[in-house]
Amino acid sequence: MYFASDNASGAAPQVMAALARANEGYDKSYGNDAIMDRVRAKIRAIFEAPEAAVYLVVNGTTANSLALSIGCPPWGSVFCHQDAHINVDECNAPEFFTNGAKLIGIAGDHGKIAPQALAQAIATTGQGGVHGAQRAMLSLTNVTEAGTVYTPAEVHALTSLAHADGQICHMDGARFANAIVATRATPAEMTWKSGIDVLSFGGTKNGLMGVEAVVIFDPAKAWEFELRRKRSGHLISKHRFLSAQMEAYLDDDLWLQLATVANAAAKRLSNGIAAHPGARLTHPTEANIVFASWPRAGHDRVKMAGAAYYFWPFDPSPSGPAEEPLSARLVTSWCTTTAEVDGFLSALNA
Amino acid sequence: MYFASDNASGAAPQVMAALARANEGYDKSYGNDAIMDRVRAKIRAIFEAPEAAVYLVVNGTTANSLALSIGCPPWGSVFCHQDAHINVDECNAPEFFTNGAKLIGIAGDHGKIAPQALAQAIATTGQGGVHGAQRAMLSLTNVTEAGTVYTPAEVHALTSLAHADGQICHMDGARFANAIVATRATPAEMTWKSGIDVLSFGGTKNGLMGVEAVVIFDPAKAWEFELRRKRSGHLISKHRFLSAQMEAYLDDDLWLQLATVANAAAKRLSNGIAAHPGARLTHPTEANIVFASWPRAGHDRVKMAGAAYYFWPFDPSPSGPAEEPLSARLVTSWCTTTAEVDGFLSALNA
Amino acid sequence: MYFASDNASGAAPQVMAALARANEGYDKSYGNDAIMDRVRAKIRAIFEAPEAAVYLVVNGTTANSLALSIGCPPWGSVFCHQDAHINVDECNAPEFFTNGAKLIGIAGDHGKIAPQALAQAIATTGQGGVHGAQRAMLSLTNVTEAGTVYTPAEVHALTSLAHADGQICHMDGARFANAIVATRATPAEMTWKSGIDVLSFGGTKNGLMGVEAVVIFDPAKAWEFELRRKRSGHLISKHRFLSAQMEAYLDDDLWLQLATVANAAAKRLSNGIAAHPGARLTHPTEANIVFASWPRAGHDRVKMAGAAYYFWPFDPSPSGPAEEPLSARLVTSWCTTTAEVDGFLSALNA
Amino acid sequence: MYFASDNASGAAPQVMAALARANEGYDKSYGNDAIMDRVRAKIRAIFEAPEAAVYLVVNGTTANSLALSIGCPPWGSVFCHQDAHINVDECNAPEFFTNGAKLIGIAGDHGKIAPQALAQAIATTGQGGVHGAQRAMLSLTNVTEAGTVYTPAEVHALTSLAHADGQICHMDGARFANAIVATRATPAEMTWKSGIDVLSFGGTKNGLMGVEAVVIFDPAKAWEFELRRKRSGHLISKHRFLSAQMEAYLDDDLWLQLATVANAAAKRLSNGIAAHPGARLTHPTEANIVFASWPRAGHDRVKMAGAAYYFWPFDPSPSGPAEEPLSARLVTSWCTTTAEVDGFLSALNA
Repeated sequence: MYFASDNASGAAPQVMAALARANEGYDKSYGNDAIMDRVRAKIRAIFEAPEAAVYLVVNGTTANSLALSIGCPPWGSVFCHQDAHINVDECNAPEFFTNGAKLIGIAGDHGKIAPQALAQAIATTGQGGVHGAQRAMLSLTNVTEAGTVYTPAEVHALTSLAHADGQICHMDGARFANAIVATRATPAEMTWKSGIDVLSFGGTKNGLMGVEAVVIFDPAKAWEFELRRKRSGHLISKHRFLSAQMEAYLDDDLWLQLATVANAAAKRLSNGIAAHPGARLTHPTEANIVFASWPRAGHDRVKMAGAAYYFWPFDPSPSGPAEEPLSARLVTSWCTTTAEVDGFLSALNA
Repeated sequence: MYFASDNASGAAPQVMAALARANEGYDKSYGNDAIMDRVRAKIRAIFEAPEAAVYLVVNGTTANSLALSIGCPPWGSVFCHQDAHINVDECNAPEFFTNGAKLIGIAGDHGKIAPQALAQAIATTGQGGVHGAQRAMLSLTNVTEAGTVYTPAEVHALTSLAHADGQICHMDGARFANAIVATRATPAEMTWKSGIDVLSFGGTKNGLMGVEAVVIFDPAKAWEFELRRKRSGHLISKHRFLSAQMEAYLDDDLWLQLATVANAAAKRLSNGIAAHPGARLTHPTEANIVFASWPRAGHDRVKMAGAAYYFWPFDPSPSGPAEEPLSARLVTSWCTTTAEVDGFLSALNA
Repeated sequence: MYFASDNASGAAPQVMAALARANEGYDKSYGNDAIMDRVRAKIRAIFEAPEAAVYLVVNGTTANSLALSIGCPPWGSVFCHQDAHINVDECNAPEFFTNGAKLIGIAGDHGKIAPQALAQAIATTGQGGVHGAQRAMLSLTNVTEAGTVYTPAEVHALTSLAHADGQICHMDGARFANAIVATRATPAEMTWKSGIDVLSFGGTKNGLMGVEAVVIFDPAKAWEFELRRKRSGHLISKHRFLSAQMEAYLDDDLWLQLATVANAAAKRLSNGIAAHPGARLTHPTEANIVFASWPRAGHDRVKMAGAAYYFWPFDPSPSGPAEEPLSARLVTSWCTTTAEVDGFLSALNA
Repeated sequence: MYFASDNASGAAPQVMAALARANEGYDKSYGNDAIMDRVRAKIRAIFEAPEAAVYLVVNGTTANSLALSIGCPPWGSVFCHQDAHINVDECNAPEFFTNGAKLIGIAGDHGKIAPQALAQAIATTGQGGVHGAQRAMLSLTNVTEAGTVYTPAEVHALTSLAHADGQICHMDGARFANAIVATRATPAEMTWKSGIDVLSFGGTKNGLMGVEAVVIFDPAKAWEFELRRKRSGHLISKHRFLSAQMEAYLDDDLWLQLATVANAAAKRLSNGIAAHPGARLTHPTEANIVFASWPRAGHDRVKMAGAAYYFWPFDPSPSGPAEEPLSARLVTSWCTTTAEVDGFLSALNA
């Protein structure tokens, strides 16, 4: 009954097996391994993007920060949801990698930016010529931080506004697989066909040890990306171990299989909680994260039974906020079992 | 009838005379000039702060950015009003000087942060330990960007919250003289006695060619400031010309005399506009900036008569916003004459 | 016969086994895993440093750059050998992490800084007060880039000069295990007992997939290190997989066993090459890297036989430099076999 | 008898008069003043460069650092003489403005880089692809830090090597006027006709209060320069006061007149010192700086007589280095008088 984070899950067995295979013998370092050639080809095929530049890094902080750094100059600004992970949970990593760009948070229900809100932000930011931050990028998180999912049409509505303003569009896809499973969109539809220029394609939260791909649909900045990756310490010497994870992830659509498990578990959990007396879903459950509130007694029972999750908005105190009902975030993953979900619901309703 | 900016005014005659005197003979460079010794002593006396470190730079961008850089680490955050100059008008200079700190804008009426809003921001920012930006500073602008003035008691209410949270408190005093004239507070009351740790003490907008002082009440970071000033290109070689301006500014309370003229002109202008049919002050006029709206016809008449000012929120189009009444910002300065003000009002009411 | 880099070797079987064990079940993320607690305790014990702060990162670029960033301010300078990896092979990563510090390369035979050279550099660097870079750190690589090894006494001679000047002393121990095996010094003798304040303790080149520890003997900057690690994208979410590698590395002195194999292979290779007609060791072979020159015909024979290594100074052309004898670098690792070494020598002497 | 620095001189009378004229009435701020339009046109005419972008800043640190920042990326390197001001006297300002570029000092007699030395540096720097700093710029100081002068032919020999390698070429012309007077080259011959892409055109050391121009011969990066200038705090609000200084400097070739005085004074001083028993010129005197050594007794006599200058290499102790003869640097300026020079020589030879 571990719902605190999808980072607390391990790696899928297929991934472990791939690592063991990759460990045999010598191989070239720094991304020149043969597995990476296959990974690059496979990602280009999956995204129907034969020219895309593809790189691997060890986590989402890095994928996002490097992606922003090739699109936003130090004097630029990045529009994102005010609760975006890049804005509130990265200890200023985007600002470090961009050398001082400004993230401009936009409000929006359920973690999603509304087109009108983006249009308003564009109209009121950096109008003062050289004196203001220069509007440079839009970053969308999909699955959002509220567990909701943008459809390709919703993505397109936002990127159209940004592109009309000359901006570059990024998608933080730490949970991209879950968004694809939720929408049944193709990877291409969800990204470049909807106006996304650069994607952080997550794997770590969905069954890898620690690998994310950055997919740059316009490869003009590929070499710059490589230099930025190296000087930030993110070019891995024994790179084959990253490549092997990603290859296993893509083989036989493992990435989609794993996300399907996670999304289904979240839906089962969400339905169960919603049926609990006094409970309410605070965001719709569209992928693998459940946001809900319910009375304190229920929290006490599930915690007693061993459930792990966070009160939300993040509250580090064990007893959580003072007022009832108490709001919480529960995250499922590729290894969440039905038994875990049902065990949680039994305790809740006991 | 030039009300576009106090930066459009020249230097006061006393300042020009001081520059001529300072130009005689050789003098040590890089801040080792004899005039600077007198300036330092004078500022310490005026602020009743015998230990304060005092430095001169050429403009407010620099004074503010350097002041923030000694109080906020790259992984830190600075709370400020959402319309603060440091947040919207410096092309990410604070982010550059701090190497990536995050400015967190707080809403508030008439350019002022309300204590409850600051308390709320503190309670919801960076609660995630290493993952979030670390709360580090509070920056207050006084005179605010809305032309209003914090009293020492209001300053104290905010710095108390920040200090209780371990933050360092900065005041952007680009128009500090105008705030002092408006409140009749002493410089000490407005700053360290109200919890301000570092002050940008403006001179440029109030009759200097281009000099601002940074007053650091706790001198522990004085040497770091000097290194930061040098490596950012802001240690001036022929420094005596900065010192001379500041000395003239302080002599015989010239700084207060000049600000008195500017504030009185703004009040006269404000009263006149408020009496115009259909006009409304959009912010109270407390110092040397008037914010008001009035019908388009009045705008047309004063512009025809040669008045210069900006539609506000900043709108670069000559005809301004589409809806009436049109909002504007008008700034007076040390050299605004009664004739200018009355000429404007005559045209407005013609 | 792969001698191009120790990065081309895989991970030791014990490490793979540890990863498999660590993969079971849920575990806390971001360094809060239980394995890390054991790793920290073990490293403190090995280094006889019960207060040391211990952190894991994924590679040497990062270990070194973060270590420098907590010791050298942006306006500071780091003394290092002119051929130091941090100076020539990191695409300005140290400059990025420190936000602009200056690395000052010092010449010295066989990759080692001579005390007189360091003293001279100290005496002629940054004498101009605020105008020059501020002397801040000394960084020694051990094993050096020339494959030689500093003894603890040699380390101490250099750190004494640096400490007398107020500097902080760093050791780049990407091949620390090889240096320990070569000198039979204890880890404490090689580091803090000889004046080292912060150590990059390598594992990747010596049998790990990709983990290095940073050991900070004075923990005053531990929290700053954690913030810097996070904002540079180097706090790994599924951190248990780093911890598990390092734990296996330390268990039963695996790290020393692996380095013993590598050093012995290098010695066998070095002896064999030195006996080749026209060959010469260009640096003494003291650890796991052989630098030698020999006639072109010998290069042709070993390359034909499948040997991989670089001409050195690094020369990317397949035929290498024009003049004979051609200089080369050959690196052994934990998995180099006697058969590989002897196969190389047979081909050389064929 | 003030020969410590040309920064210790004041501003020429023509400059003071221009400032007084510029002070009348209102004028647009931030570089939009009418005087700047004339300055831009005049500099373009003087340099026969009708497309050049022209900007003013307050000192040489800034002119150089901004010029480097538009030519060298954070992962790049700048070749310069090892004693170049940008390398040793700017507290890492170039590293700050470029966000971490590496300056690579090249040895060379009398402050000048020899073509062979540059070729060698190019051949041995950054050969490792993504791992090394990327060669990006060449920076030449003219007048050099040793008081010598590159001819246009010498400049061209160096820029040809750099351009062949894809680099951008910068000239630090803090004493550009002195170099022009010394060589009788035209400004165009000394710069773009010899391969210089961006020039720091100094004024401060030669009779201005504090203004340098940056002349960018290829204006493609003009807007980027403006943004970098703003965010580094170097866009001056009352910019007319910079423009006015530069206009006066260019009017009637004042800049060349002033430099002619300085160069002549240095020659007279140099000749006199060279004739002193035991004296020796340590660098040839080609512009306005004299480097010479002579016995201690002579130093004692001139210091007693009130002469100010530095022992060199810079030695802050009053009695200077222990060994005789003691080396010194003496700088003349636009306001050095024959009486000062002759007074110095009389005391020396007394």
